[in-house]
Amino acid sequence: MKSQDIQLNYKISVNFDYRLIFSEGVFSKDNSTLDKILNEGSAQGGRPRSLVFLDEGLSLAHPGLRKKIEDYFFHYRESLTLTGSPLLIPGGEKSKQNISLFKWVIESIQNANICRHSYVIVVGGGSVIDLVCFAASIVHRGIRQIRIPSTVLAQDDAGIGIKNGIDAFNQKNFLGSFYPPFAVINDAQLLSTLSQENWISGIAEAVKVALIKDPEFFDWILKNLYPLKNRNLEAIRKLIQRCAELHLLHIRTSGDPFEMESARPLDFGHWTAHKLETLSDYTIPHGHAVATGMILDLFYSKRMGWTSAADVEKISNCLSQLGFTLWQPLLLKKNPKTLRYLILDGLNEFKEHLGGILNITLLKRVGEPFQVQQIEEDQIIAAIDEFRNETT
Amino acid sequence: MKSQDIQLNYKISVNFDYRLIFSEGVFSKDNSTLDKILNEGSAQGGRPRSLVFLDEGLSLAHPGLRKKIEDYFFHYRESLTLTGSPLLIPGGEKSKQNISLFKWVIESIQNANICRHSYVIVVGGGSVIDLVCFAASIVHRGIRQIRIPSTVLAQDDAGIGIKNGIDAFNQKNFLGSFYPPFAVINDAQLLSTLSQENWISGIAEAVKVALIKDPEFFDWILKNLYPLKNRNLEAIRKLIQRCAELHLLHIRTSGDPFEMESARPLDFGHWTAHKLETLSDYTIPHGHAVATGMILDLFYSKRMGWTSAADVEKISNCLSQLGFTLWQPLLLKKNPKTLRYLILDGLNEFKEHLGGILNITLLKRVGEPFQVQQIEEDQIIAAIDEFRNETT
Repeated sequence: MKSQDIQLNYKISVNFDYRLIFSEGVFSKDNSTLDKILNEGSAQGGRPRSLVFLDEGLSLAHPGLRKKIEDYFFHYRESLTLTGSPLLIPGGEKSKQNISLFKWVIESIQNANICRHSYVIVVGGGSVIDLVCFAASIVHRGIRQIRIPSTVLAQDDAGIGIKNGIDAFNQKNFLGSFYPPFAVINDAQLLSTLSQENWISGIAEAVKVALIKDPEFFDWILKNLYPLKNRNLEAIRKLIQRCAELHLLHIRTSGDPFEMESARPLDFGHWTAHKLETLSDYTIPHGHAVATGMILDLFYSKRMGWTSAADVEKISNCLSQLGFTLWQPLLLKKNPKTLRYLILDGLNEFKEHLGGILNITLLKRVGEPFQVQQIEEDQIIAAIDEFRNETT
Repeated sequence: MKSQDIQLNYKISVNFDYRLIFSEGVFSKDNSTLDKILNEGSAQGGRPRSLVFLDEGLSLAHPGLRKKIEDYFFHYRESLTLTGSPLLIPGGEKSKQNISLFKWVIESIQNANICRHSYVIVVGGGSVIDLVCFAASIVHRGIRQIRIPSTVLAQDDAGIGIKNGIDAFNQKNFLGSFYPPFAVINDAQLLSTLSQENWISGIAEAVKVALIKDPEFFDWILKNLYPLKNRNLEAIRKLIQRCAELHLLHIRTSGDPFEMESARPLDFGHWTAHKLETLSDYTIPHGHAVATGMILDLFYSKRMGWTSAADVEKISNCLSQLGFTLWQPLLLKKNPKTLRYLILDGLNEFKEHLGGILNITLLKRVGEPFQVQQIEEDQIIAAIDEFRNETT
């Protein structure tokens, strides 16, 4: 540094208000929650304006929902403005790869004249939320967002965080931002039409967060495997609420909500999961891929002498009893040119995504995560074999 | 709100480190500032990697600069990695309207395999900085950015903030984000080739911030009109440093760095400025438009009885002596269909940009800004007439 240099170091602190709400029948006329929330924002000389995006799959499963949303805003017309009929948008992982869809969302926000004090409301699964919230986060440098997630996975994990994004260049979430939503409203009534596969998918993320953060919560899950699997609403509500709280606690207290450092403790089981999803062309749902990813990492950790066989068995049994097929044949698929397992490429991709340093979360025992900076290739291959032999 | 609702209110706090550096000859081999800054970031298992974007106009004016940047990284090759030759990018306001250019920046970042712990360095004027930093802020949800602004305007205003953006749908900064750069390095040597028009353009923003925030600084400017106008390097360095510090002070202490509320005290003179720039197809440079915008608002404020004639005259004289042509004939151009002044549309556009509420900063006297929530149309038209009569 030259002697005449002047260096001024500043800290810039930004505070976001984040409202996490659990309500029932959020678009029923006798439920004023949404009306109240939308009017909590600072005044803008009139009724707050809202543009609603509605997941097409959800709309098909709940044929009256779109009309119900319109009726809700009509009922509260003294205090709310809906800019037009809710816009239907295709959901699922593939939507995040669709750049035209992303552009259409931006155009729709522009057409509706949504300003920084108006709202974009998105009702749907995690992919639709990611896509719409990313678009809203870059219009006018960020428009207020209300997330109303409609799957277990979105209500307890994907939809309640502060990240968003779309895929590009064959990389998951290559484009995206950190942008805390104005509010998240979890409504268990929206879950009623989920397929069983998607129902349990969200439970895998709750198991994950319990394993990392809260042994008591894991014990509670073990005691409630039957009601959780069999769609008991009271049980799933409790699971979602605890899981969502643990996520928000992590975001608030980690000291690094925008993930400027390398640690990602919540990504337990995720390097395998991301790769399995891509290799399967997204036919393996996210939670199922995470279940497999956690078990693979546990088998690896057992081989390395870090986790007991009893703990690995207890966690495997938990996931099996919830209905997960843990072993995925794709784990063994070899690249014909190199004879390497394709799954191993996931490690490098995860490394680049994290920012150059590999940081894999493993588990000593329930509630005791730790980080490793490398995975030994011959040991992970041996772990894959052991995984197959012991679970099939 | 339904009685069984649960509402959890959280605060999410995010802290950014922001380094503002004044150095000379930042790409001279004997200047280790950039090397030091790039190595201040958290480790990534090797030498930090950098991708450099270089403003084409700057490169033309400083023909050796691109090679000099390459030589710099070669000299520091033990501790730095350059991903490739600096990429030339066209500058000026029109670049921000070019969505293909924006896509090309994203593709270039992807091609260079820039991760979240690598750097995008941008050397150029405010528009190139806005464009490149917006792209970098959404790749992998935000890549570290180093801004090296090359105009007076970029060094004291446009380049030292935390905003970025591009234009879309004929609206300035329709897309963009708030993303504090890792560092800003101001190097007065880069200013030597600026046209006189661009040289004084940046001084207008310093006059603005002095008028709003720092009467002593305004007095200093009044005493240094001749050296400032005549490109005395010592004077311009002092002006840039004080102006940049006042900006950062505002961002840090306003309590609202991401502008979630409506107030924009730094936008004094800017509603007229934005509109004048568009109406002139960007032939009126930003600082010149701001100078005109401030004087129009002062004439309005004088008519309303809020500002003394003496203050308006003092500020007008200051700007005139710096070389600004204050009266712009475009202020009078009428829309043939409506007979309305086109400039008045700027008020509505500014209102939407702010988020639905008009908030115009005016000046009681130097150092005493205040906000009004409306502008009376007949009075502003009368102010335009008075402005023309008194300054032409």
